[in-house]
Amino acid sequence: MTKTTLAGIIAYTVTPFSNNDEQINLAALFVLIDKLIDSGVDAIAALGSAGEGAYLDDDEWALVALQTVKHVKGRVPVMIGIAELTTKKAVSRAIFANEIGADAIMVSPFSYYRLSEDEIYDHYAAVSAAISIPIMIYNNPATCGVDMSPEFMLNMVENIENATMIKESTGDIQRMRSLQRLSNGTVPFFNGCNYIALDALNAGATGWCTAAPCLIDDLPKQLFDAVRSDALVKAKVLFEKQLPLLEFIVKGGLASTVKAGLEIKGIHAGLARRPLKPLTDESKQTLESILLKVAE
Amino acid sequence: MTKTTLAGIIAYTVTPFSNNDEQINLAALFVLIDKLIDSGVDAIAALGSAGEGAYLDDDEWALVALQTVKHVKGRVPVMIGIAELTTKKAVSRAIFANEIGADAIMVSPFSYYRLSEDEIYDHYAAVSAAISIPIMIYNNPATCGVDMSPEFMLNMVENIENATMIKESTGDIQRMRSLQRLSNGTVPFFNGCNYIALDALNAGATGWCTAAPCLIDDLPKQLFDAVRSDALVKAKVLFEKQLPLLEFIVKGGLASTVKAGLEIKGIHAGLARRPLKPLTDESKQTLESILLKVAE
Amino acid sequence: MTKTTLAGIIAYTVTPFSNNDEQINLAALFVLIDKLIDSGVDAIAALGSAGEGAYLDDDEWALVALQTVKHVKGRVPVMIGIAELTTKKAVSRAIFANEIGADAIMVSPFSYYRLSEDEIYDHYAAVSAAISIPIMIYNNPATCGVDMSPEFMLNMVENIENATMIKESTGDIQRMRSLQRLSNGTVPFFNGCNYIALDALNAGATGWCTAAPCLIDDLPKQLFDAVRSDALVKAKVLFEKQLPLLEFIVKGGLASTVKAGLEIKGIHAGLARRPLKPLTDESKQTLESILLKVAE
Amino acid sequence: MTKTTLAGIIAYTVTPFSNNDEQINLAALFVLIDKLIDSGVDAIAALGSAGEGAYLDDDEWALVALQTVKHVKGRVPVMIGIAELTTKKAVSRAIFANEIGADAIMVSPFSYYRLSEDEIYDHYAAVSAAISIPIMIYNNPATCGVDMSPEFMLNMVENIENATMIKESTGDIQRMRSLQRLSNGTVPFFNGCNYIALDALNAGATGWCTAAPCLIDDLPKQLFDAVRSDALVKAKVLFEKQLPLLEFIVKGGLASTVKAGLEIKGIHAGLARRPLKPLTDESKQTLESILLKVAE
Repeated sequence: MTKTTLAGIIAYTVTPFSNNDEQINLAALFVLIDKLIDSGVDAIAALGSAGEGAYLDDDEWALVALQTVKHVKGRVPVMIGIAELTTKKAVSRAIFANEIGADAIMVSPFSYYRLSEDEIYDHYAAVSAAISIPIMIYNNPATCGVDMSPEFMLNMVENIENATMIKESTGDIQRMRSLQRLSNGTVPFFNGCNYIALDALNAGATGWCTAAPCLIDDLPKQLFDAVRSDALVKAKVLFEKQLPLLEFIVKGGLASTVKAGLEIKGIHAGLARRPLKPLTDESKQTLESILLKVAE
Repeated sequence: MTKTTLAGIIAYTVTPFSNNDEQINLAALFVLIDKLIDSGVDAIAALGSAGEGAYLDDDEWALVALQTVKHVKGRVPVMIGIAELTTKKAVSRAIFANEIGADAIMVSPFSYYRLSEDEIYDHYAAVSAAISIPIMIYNNPATCGVDMSPEFMLNMVENIENATMIKESTGDIQRMRSLQRLSNGTVPFFNGCNYIALDALNAGATGWCTAAPCLIDDLPKQLFDAVRSDALVKAKVLFEKQLPLLEFIVKGGLASTVKAGLEIKGIHAGLARRPLKPLTDESKQTLESILLKVAE
Repeated sequence: MTKTTLAGIIAYTVTPFSNNDEQINLAALFVLIDKLIDSGVDAIAALGSAGEGAYLDDDEWALVALQTVKHVKGRVPVMIGIAELTTKKAVSRAIFANEIGADAIMVSPFSYYRLSEDEIYDHYAAVSAAISIPIMIYNNPATCGVDMSPEFMLNMVENIENATMIKESTGDIQRMRSLQRLSNGTVPFFNGCNYIALDALNAGATGWCTAAPCLIDDLPKQLFDAVRSDALVKAKVLFEKQLPLLEFIVKGGLASTVKAGLEIKGIHAGLARRPLKPLTDESKQTLESILLKVAE
Repeated sequence: MTKTTLAGIIAYTVTPFSNNDEQINLAALFVLIDKLIDSGVDAIAALGSAGEGAYLDDDEWALVALQTVKHVKGRVPVMIGIAELTTKKAVSRAIFANEIGADAIMVSPFSYYRLSEDEIYDHYAAVSAAISIPIMIYNNPATCGVDMSPEFMLNMVENIENATMIKESTGDIQRMRSLQRLSNGTVPFFNGCNYIALDALNAGATGWCTAAPCLIDDLPKQLFDAVRSDALVKAKVLFEKQLPLLEFIVKGGLASTVKAGLEIKGIHAGLARRPLKPLTDESKQTLESILLKVAE
């Protein structure tokens, strides 16, 4: 079993659709993947929140996972997002991701019923037992309805074989510091909340999971490198520059806003799937002006 | 288009499994349905929270919906629960329910991304446009991550053709009173929070959506009848009698507790599907003693 | 030590001011007290939320407490509200209330720092040890920043000598039922959330703590009596009649709305103290029309 | 009118008591003030959360304010904390602070009734109109029950003459960045949440309001200086060093923990006032070991 360790900028793809929100547009996905790799990202992550993983049917999900791995072709590691309601489904998707050659999976519990820590623990343990690639434990109560504490997630990393990384998306900077301190810096943790990226990296985050490179290319990577090389002032300037975009895509909904931005940049990613609505014309104009300003 | 109006006790079935949480056990489902109808319930609802609708795969879901309608065979109306992440899936399941002869569907938005009222409205409108049976709008933020106000739900009832009923499960008695008052009693609303059943019926609820009849037969129906006939003291006594059971099944998780209770009563409903865990032995004993006491 | 037991309608006075929000207007207070007693309330409570107890300086507070007891002159029991940040102050005010002849005190913790149950327990125990009149434990997280569970409050009633009654103001009907059930109906508990009054009385509340009689005279008492005599239908009608007023005074802020209502009814209670603002003209008109309708 | 601008480390004093929590111990207060000034703090703030301002009676409050100003004697600016329930009291205390020569006041709304933005605005405006020294707008929902948005506070700074500074204590790093960005860096804002100090300073905070210097002398100042001189690595090391202490005093309650720590360091500050309880022996030992480690 290889324990790939991810670091740096983990770039999240959207899942482009054609015919509004209907068919998967693989051609557009490939264009996007190439663009991301060209801009220097350290890994590609498919089927996360930006990728509408939860909104795809089984065939679509499998297709996007498979074609992402095949098209990336080892240029960078590929991580596949898995947020399933049942353990059975999470396990079967994890096995699929492992089989097709994904380098890692990102797993979040997704709740309909309230879940206990015991139930969540066993969910991860069952996934881990079925595969031989690393799991990034993903905490995002806003989408998944489950909030896992730093202590609990570190406990899973210690005791569940393939659970080796943590992604924290609550936006609470204190949790980043707790992950760092409670593990003495031995457990890689990633920031999943775009607008606290600078603070999270300063707090020791191993990387930043973000869809922003879809729209602003290597700016996130430049920020990561600046922090890593202790160029604080430069990092601040870089962060301030991209912050309006980061805030906009979080506030407006990742899938819808990134897709609208790609359209502006000439990549036909289509619309986010309903019930999500496309951006209003006013929002599109705001986004356009933010993108223009960032590009200056 | 017929506008079936439901009222009284809407009894929710669990989805029995055999081999722990693996295969659907239709035989046990049929036994349960017959038992419920024998105990005088006014309607059968499949694939709600008690029925692990969210935890079934597509084939299983369709099978349970179809076999429920077929086995009930018109003895009472059948309602099918639909809680889908995408509008597309909600529509296709609604059409299926309509085609197989369900009398109504209960639809709740289910959120991964935060949804606006506009998005939720269009979700319901799309479902309505595809069918010719009534929709019960279902508000349950605890499971579905979306909280709809009485005002918003009444607005949908007014404007969306097949949206004719409301089910409120927050347990906030004030919302029941608001639904009653804001609609001048013209919109049927149902209580979905077991432990406030008496207060909700007193506040004018048209009915009570509950899995409790699976375990305590006609006690819920007796309570409903007592309130309807203004037998306040009798209603209080009946409610106090069943309250420990109602609290237990809400607190312990509907699917797991009702299945454990059915096992105690000799109906082999199996376990709730993982990540849900079965009741501990201690909890089972508590449930057993509650059931004994209610039966006195 | 006499353990006065309160029951029925506990009517809360406002603290009338003259010169806008400046001086205490005792004459208006006396008019109000007489009017309340004339309308058949079972007790008078001064210096609660309606009475701006927290907004008075020491001299004013003592004056209102003393003059209320003197003016009521034993016609009905008098309860004095005490919501203090420090134990020292709560104790000294409790002693004062006891000395001037109050029949009971209503005590709520008031938090600046987060308080533990241990700290709250000792706060009540210290107050109890200093007096010989009953304490009503008052839970109102919305104003006091502390939320006490039914279990914790019942534990205090069991162990702290003068703590004999509970007032619950969260509006969660389930807590009423818990107080009733956990104490087997042996601990008197009062409803402090106006708009759930009917449900609370149905759930066994010993009484209703309310400022509503200031504006709608004996309607709350009529409701109480109807529930006590199991006249459910009559109770419903009475409740629906006063509900718009009850909702209005809670939503708009007790002190401001009741004072505005008194003004409409010809009692010059002045304004609530700043930072509270008086009602807008539009709100006053709404209140006026609600009062007209209730009086029909 | 002079607009003193504060910056750097604003050190908060506790209010030492003798005889447990009874009398003010001015001698101990003076020792503490001298120690803080010796350790290089940029200003002294009395009667904040650490100073139990809300727990003092009128005479005590005035005494501490007056004696702090007199003892500091212009060595550094003095700020006085004002958190009052009524506008009248806030105004009279503001006038007092102005009269005795305080350089600034820190004002927070303190809610019993829910307050609207209009009410809060007028509260600040009334205070401002009565004085000629700067006001630091203080947002701390955890203690004061009111949460003011960055936008609202900046609006007050723009429109209320003496409102010139903001202190944010929610611990939400994103609000710091919003204050910086929305004001283009023109409005001085301060961090009031100890454990996010590094991130807040990195986000552009003008200073750090903290009681930590009472226990760890110039470490907060060293951190501030490191960030100001862009010594990121040094700043991180300094922050990690003091973080356990910062977390301990926030988690355990500022007043109680800082007083316990002063006792360990030989300054007899007594106990925090009841209902607050002193630290357990176990907590004291934890604190002692944290202090030993920081001092290494």
